[in-house]
Amino acid sequence: MTAPSREDCAALDRRDPLARYRDHFLLPEGIRYLDGNSLGALPKAAPETLSTVLREEWGVGLIRSWTRAGWIAAPERLGDRLAPLIGAAPGEVVVTDSTSVNLFKLVVGALRLRPGRRLVLSEGGNFPTDLYVAQGAIEVLGRGHELRLVEAGEVEAALSDEVALVMLSHVDFKTAAVHDMAALTQAAHRAGALMLWDLAHSAGALKVELGRAGADLAVGCGYKFLNGGPGAPAFLFVAERLQAELEPVLTGWMGHARPFDFATDYAPAPGIRRHLCGTPPILSLAALEAALELWREVDLSQVRRKSIALGELFIGLVEARCRGLGFVLASPREGSARGSQVSFRHAQGYAITQALIARGVIGDFRTPDLLRFGFAPLYTRYVDLWDAVEALAEVMASGAWNKPEFRERAFVT
Amino acid sequence: MTAPSREDCAALDRRDPLARYRDHFLLPEGIRYLDGNSLGALPKAAPETLSTVLREEWGVGLIRSWTRAGWIAAPERLGDRLAPLIGAAPGEVVVTDSTSVNLFKLVVGALRLRPGRRLVLSEGGNFPTDLYVAQGAIEVLGRGHELRLVEAGEVEAALSDEVALVMLSHVDFKTAAVHDMAALTQAAHRAGALMLWDLAHSAGALKVELGRAGADLAVGCGYKFLNGGPGAPAFLFVAERLQAELEPVLTGWMGHARPFDFATDYAPAPGIRRHLCGTPPILSLAALEAALELWREVDLSQVRRKSIALGELFIGLVEARCRGLGFVLASPREGSARGSQVSFRHAQGYAITQALIARGVIGDFRTPDLLRFGFAPLYTRYVDLWDAVEALAEVMASGAWNKPEFRERAFVT
Repeated sequence: MTAPSREDCAALDRRDPLARYRDHFLLPEGIRYLDGNSLGALPKAAPETLSTVLREEWGVGLIRSWTRAGWIAAPERLGDRLAPLIGAAPGEVVVTDSTSVNLFKLVVGALRLRPGRRLVLSEGGNFPTDLYVAQGAIEVLGRGHELRLVEAGEVEAALSDEVALVMLSHVDFKTAAVHDMAALTQAAHRAGALMLWDLAHSAGALKVELGRAGADLAVGCGYKFLNGGPGAPAFLFVAERLQAELEPVLTGWMGHARPFDFATDYAPAPGIRRHLCGTPPILSLAALEAALELWREVDLSQVRRKSIALGELFIGLVEARCRGLGFVLASPREGSARGSQVSFRHAQGYAITQALIARGVIGDFRTPDLLRFGFAPLYTRYVDLWDAVEALAEVMASGAWNKPEFRERAFVT
Repeated sequence: MTAPSREDCAALDRRDPLARYRDHFLLPEGIRYLDGNSLGALPKAAPETLSTVLREEWGVGLIRSWTRAGWIAAPERLGDRLAPLIGAAPGEVVVTDSTSVNLFKLVVGALRLRPGRRLVLSEGGNFPTDLYVAQGAIEVLGRGHELRLVEAGEVEAALSDEVALVMLSHVDFKTAAVHDMAALTQAAHRAGALMLWDLAHSAGALKVELGRAGADLAVGCGYKFLNGGPGAPAFLFVAERLQAELEPVLTGWMGHARPFDFATDYAPAPGIRRHLCGTPPILSLAALEAALELWREVDLSQVRRKSIALGELFIGLVEARCRGLGFVLASPREGSARGSQVSFRHAQGYAITQALIARGVIGDFRTPDLLRFGFAPLYTRYVDLWDAVEALAEVMASGAWNKPEFRERAFVT
């Protein structure tokens, strides 16, 4: 089989039902951006929105904008806007704090709902902050809980009546391997455990069905496939059936039932709002809201189809054009088992990534040897992948990666 | 004594050494804004800065901006910028999360440093979120701690060897009464307790001297007198001498010693950075950074002098022009004992506040009967206070406050 030509790729772009969305992003000239799984691109609407929020709502409205401009309702409003993207119902999602902070809230909250069970079960390959936060939560609680880490694929076998909480990333940040959300949630429930999903690499990348899977808890990130901007506020999901019994953990005034009564004692708000803590960061929320606007009419089935097609094209091109050059596919080959990213292992992965970036092909590197390439179906074109692999082939053929400035490790994200 | 005339006030403005700073803010026409203690005004530099961060750093730089544009260092860079405003040394302050989230970190951290002591001591009149967060932290710890609340002025008498942590607001959010930071810190230390100050109403309002007072811990807010924008990130201070022993509590990846090693186990960063948790909200940080730029050359002694003068003028004008109308001063009369705000009690405080807002005089109301008027010496003019009291006198004389639309309570901030 011959690899597709650039013209073949351009033809795919012309037939792409999502092609029109690319025009809603400001993308730099000459860059092939394959890192939307780390930081999504800038929606054109964001600078406009921020300008209005700054000059009119903050500048002119001042304190009055908390009510008049709807600032106070932003965490729930954005949550409801986001809910359909992850298969949640209105009132089940709130946008607040960071993914890590939200994880802390839910890990502690979940452990309090399962007294007598001592294990948090996760995978050793889960995103490190998830593991760190769980370790920290267990230490703060100081009640003899333990974080038990197993290999991918061994979670079900490790379930027992000691497990209080199963905590997994839906899509693996290194390999993009997708967990079977429904099956694992059901297995956790059969063991009497609660199930918490980290959707950082899922929301906006594929169709997430928290409700249908019966998931209990979830967190996720606003700045990857949702395009909410660097360090955008994160989201937190609690299934409606658990909301009354799940007590808030970071009990700040914004989660109080009546914050402006300024009562001495804390009383949690009735719904998802109880998981708010401090005053919401309006500017960052505004950028995320502008980004979420774009998703209103997006068909997630089309997103998923294109994402899989992009992944297949990329794998095929790399394997055809860089055969025998040391690249080993680290992602599932089967599209349905893969998120919106393809990773290859290569002993010189770091230097190759840097050499690609110097040529305007932006992916990223994850230690020890992973090159990650993310595909954002709203703005990644098929030709971008062709160009990226062309650059990769050149970098390898010319030995351009083998320069001191590419090999020397800087502080990378 | 006759009350000063508007011309007297204009003369004070002409002699004001801080007058030139007003030009650095975008203030709406026809508004007398006396709520900078709740949300500071918009620095002119903020929209410009945000536009650059959005279009250039995010839009063009994309993921590369974490290093190239210095995003990754923003929490510490802003902390060092802020440090001189609160009497802290470089490396003692970090800007991150919300005040409430930061309080949680420090309350839990402090209690772990004082095992065997069961009390958190505070005032019943402390800002509610501080009390809520302490209650929540105690509940999460589940080790029999107790939040003991005493009346203002009775903290010292309540100190004992049971007290692990004293937690106070430096400036009271209702009355603006200022605590003697050095005396109370020393008293706490004599009792073997740690001292945590909430500087929400202090930073940018008066000269805070954490270092000289020997304070251990502090938190504060970026969106009041610092003008960082609605819900701006908050700050957290840990005295250098405590940094090594104070373990982080919300152990997210940004506080890890080597976040991009993606190690399975958490290892805290050596300095103040260990108290970071998730990915920092760059857009909100950028607005705060623009605001902090303004403070570079501000003389805090001048700020304090003007703040006291504004307070005295305001008290004098209200007492002269609204005599016998039911206003009772709720703030200390003595300038040195008062922050940058003056509060009056009035049985119809809510409706009067609304009637003032309708006339473009923006203060705020705090339950049950407090009218608060904040003075931001960088942009509040003496004539603004004259105009505000003129409006207040009119509202009272005309009975304009006594309308259903002003009496009906909405969700206010």
